[in-house]
Amino acid sequence: MGKIFVIGAGRSASTLIRYLLENAEAQSWEIRVGDINLELAKQKIAGHPRGQAVLFDSLDRATYGDHITWSDLVISMLPASMHVPIARECIDHGKHLLTASYISDEMQELHAEAQKAGVLLLNEMGLDPGIDHMSAMRMLDKLREQGVPIVRFESFAGGLLAPQSEANNPWRYKFTWNPRNVVLAGSGSAVKFVQEDRYKYIPYQRLFRRTEIIEIEGYGKFEGYANRDSLKYIDVYRLRGIPTIYRGTLRRPGFCKAWDVFVQLGATDDSYLMEGSEDMTCREFIDSFLLYDTQDSTRLRLMHYLRLDHDSPEMEKLDWLGIFDDTPIGYGKPGTPAQLLQHILEKKWNLEPDDKDMIVMVHKIHFLDSDAKRHQLFSSTAILGEDRTYTAMAHTVGLPLGIAARLILNRTIQLTGVQRPTLPAIYHPVLQELERYGITFHERETAVQFESMY
Amino acid sequence: MGKIFVIGAGRSASTLIRYLLENAEAQSWEIRVGDINLELAKQKIAGHPRGQAVLFDSLDRATYGDHITWSDLVISMLPASMHVPIARECIDHGKHLLTASYISDEMQELHAEAQKAGVLLLNEMGLDPGIDHMSAMRMLDKLREQGVPIVRFESFAGGLLAPQSEANNPWRYKFTWNPRNVVLAGSGSAVKFVQEDRYKYIPYQRLFRRTEIIEIEGYGKFEGYANRDSLKYIDVYRLRGIPTIYRGTLRRPGFCKAWDVFVQLGATDDSYLMEGSEDMTCREFIDSFLLYDTQDSTRLRLMHYLRLDHDSPEMEKLDWLGIFDDTPIGYGKPGTPAQLLQHILEKKWNLEPDDKDMIVMVHKIHFLDSDAKRHQLFSSTAILGEDRTYTAMAHTVGLPLGIAARLILNRTIQLTGVQRPTLPAIYHPVLQELERYGITFHERETAVQFESMY
Repeated sequence: MGKIFVIGAGRSASTLIRYLLENAEAQSWEIRVGDINLELAKQKIAGHPRGQAVLFDSLDRATYGDHITWSDLVISMLPASMHVPIARECIDHGKHLLTASYISDEMQELHAEAQKAGVLLLNEMGLDPGIDHMSAMRMLDKLREQGVPIVRFESFAGGLLAPQSEANNPWRYKFTWNPRNVVLAGSGSAVKFVQEDRYKYIPYQRLFRRTEIIEIEGYGKFEGYANRDSLKYIDVYRLRGIPTIYRGTLRRPGFCKAWDVFVQLGATDDSYLMEGSEDMTCREFIDSFLLYDTQDSTRLRLMHYLRLDHDSPEMEKLDWLGIFDDTPIGYGKPGTPAQLLQHILEKKWNLEPDDKDMIVMVHKIHFLDSDAKRHQLFSSTAILGEDRTYTAMAHTVGLPLGIAARLILNRTIQLTGVQRPTLPAIYHPVLQELERYGITFHERETAVQFESMY
Repeated sequence: MGKIFVIGAGRSASTLIRYLLENAEAQSWEIRVGDINLELAKQKIAGHPRGQAVLFDSLDRATYGDHITWSDLVISMLPASMHVPIARECIDHGKHLLTASYISDEMQELHAEAQKAGVLLLNEMGLDPGIDHMSAMRMLDKLREQGVPIVRFESFAGGLLAPQSEANNPWRYKFTWNPRNVVLAGSGSAVKFVQEDRYKYIPYQRLFRRTEIIEIEGYGKFEGYANRDSLKYIDVYRLRGIPTIYRGTLRRPGFCKAWDVFVQLGATDDSYLMEGSEDMTCREFIDSFLLYDTQDSTRLRLMHYLRLDHDSPEMEKLDWLGIFDDTPIGYGKPGTPAQLLQHILEKKWNLEPDDKDMIVMVHKIHFLDSDAKRHQLFSSTAILGEDRTYTAMAHTVGLPLGIAARLILNRTIQLTGVQRPTLPAIYHPVLQELERYGITFHERETAVQFESMY
């Protein structure tokens, strides 16, 4: 038996809360869900006899203690920056904590204290980070057990539309997660990775033109662009000395070349407010980035500026978004280019009632056999959402957390301190149970014929 | 008569100190030059009977008072960030201060205090800012006196090579000023300007492809790219409501398209240290930004990546720099891409003993006549350096400061408070004396036929 306190009832918590309630009777659990929006917490509990909705204001730290004292285990779905004060309370009251966020430096500093208190602070327990760590480490550890040299690690993930929801959408994409992160993806510092022992750097202005095509059987082709910093995974995955490491994000083919239009225009800039953006139209927004001219249309000048054909796949995608129309953006206040672009995209890229999402994840690992021949292990999964609430994103974030909660409360997992699921003691039982929920990786091995390039 | 204390004896102070010493006898001046490098100060004074070299450590504020008490007027050639504590001492001791730097917010806050003390803190008294303000305001004020509507203001300046030093250098460029500023030019936030009442924005990745050709009679053609923020000049030049305002930097034609290669590669990024940069060769540096390949040369892959022809002017410029050679860069410590690129460029772009520099400046002002016909006033100047010490850059920074010093000490300029030379009381007498030193603007008026585009 156990008492579980879930902080945050937003859309990423849907599957988690459902999992906990469905297992509550059998496991003798009581589930308390706290949110700043009490109604939202109530909706998610839906009158379940073992559920309880409470008002929880993350800014009111004085109230943390009561809920944490009540619980045996806490799951924080708050933004990453808000976990540390909760973790401190958990240590004080001897309660375990689960999050789906990257371990911050401040969180890492709690390691010794948590160990001393016999408390587990298990982070990176969602999709990415989470399922990526577990599925990759299972493959890597198996190869290490076999004693074969691992010479390449590539990993890709993407939150996309289910194939059935891609029709009539030339981008084959909608927002299935934080839209702001999608608009700003890759901006900021240059991308870093290692290829054949050479450090490689890609600046933002070239990122979406350096893609790699990846096919997942039964789901078709995808294109991957590089994530910000692949280097930090060298230590996390114990791959020091590996000649090639690369992590990327998956989109449908053609997405990146069209997205690069916004990058080249400067329409993803988040560093300044645009004059007159309160009552700007979509066309005026695009025009701000183009050469001045009174004769030619905004559409024609964009084509000329970025050397696009009028019937190119890029123009088809841009036309579909309506960005050349004199429709008011309706942002209603001064905005940065990135904020205005997001507002424009949300009109076309928000999920419709019958839209379903899909998560895809791929690992490509190269190792050498005893004849120093290169082999590739290709592992992939595709997970479909049920609807707009129980999305593939909510499944893949919520199920690892829920399963981990069960394994901690039934003492299958007995670790303490600040951890992530790169340990066999965590990933083996969690991956095993995830398969029961259809989260299964398909693996195939091939001999490597020629090299891919980024 | 008067005592002048010059802080800083670096290369930008050469012409200033020479001007002051040359006029010292006639004006009954005593000149004290302070520098952290006493030898440098002594060199500049060169035993002149009215000159005196002293050790001056800008970090040792306790010593400010003595020098400032001694003087009647202080000229600070220190970096902009170091002027404010000097300005405070000047106010305390009732002494005037001259600088060639932009007025910072902290400097501006001293206005009332300086006025109360009867002290003039005259800033932006060099080339740019300085001569640009004075020459532009003289034109603008004259048009305003005539009551004609001013509908466009464009202004360009550049520090370049004298035509005689351009031979055998396909860039027709060397560093004549702070190399770091040249490498980082335009990076950071987007460029902003107004064209025909429309706000326009150019991101860094397009900046060097949005150029305008400008010809100066007798000096040939130049190309201008936009400066960071043209909008702040609207108030400085009293141009509120003007439909078009644009400020830019001049290079020789073709420079920008070739420089854009470095921008597109990400070689001007200053935000991260490159792995292994201590003992990297030029070719390896360029290769870090290219796709991995073991077959083709770095040069060929760059051409393919950025779609350059092997015999293009861009490749000619890059070849000339030696960036495809396996020559060690020799930076000797970890560096950012921008730091390494600067180090590579300095081998080819530093002035040789017989090289001379050139400053060019252009204003293009459009106004409407009584028939609402558009006219253009085109005003330009080109100033040649004498040698590597008495450069055009040193002339154009030092002479306005020196002349202003004379006009303040002989009470021709009687202002107080924080000022810049946009006032007729300053720009008229200074521009008049600058002509005696060959800094003359040539003006011509033309009817406007068609519009230029950025």
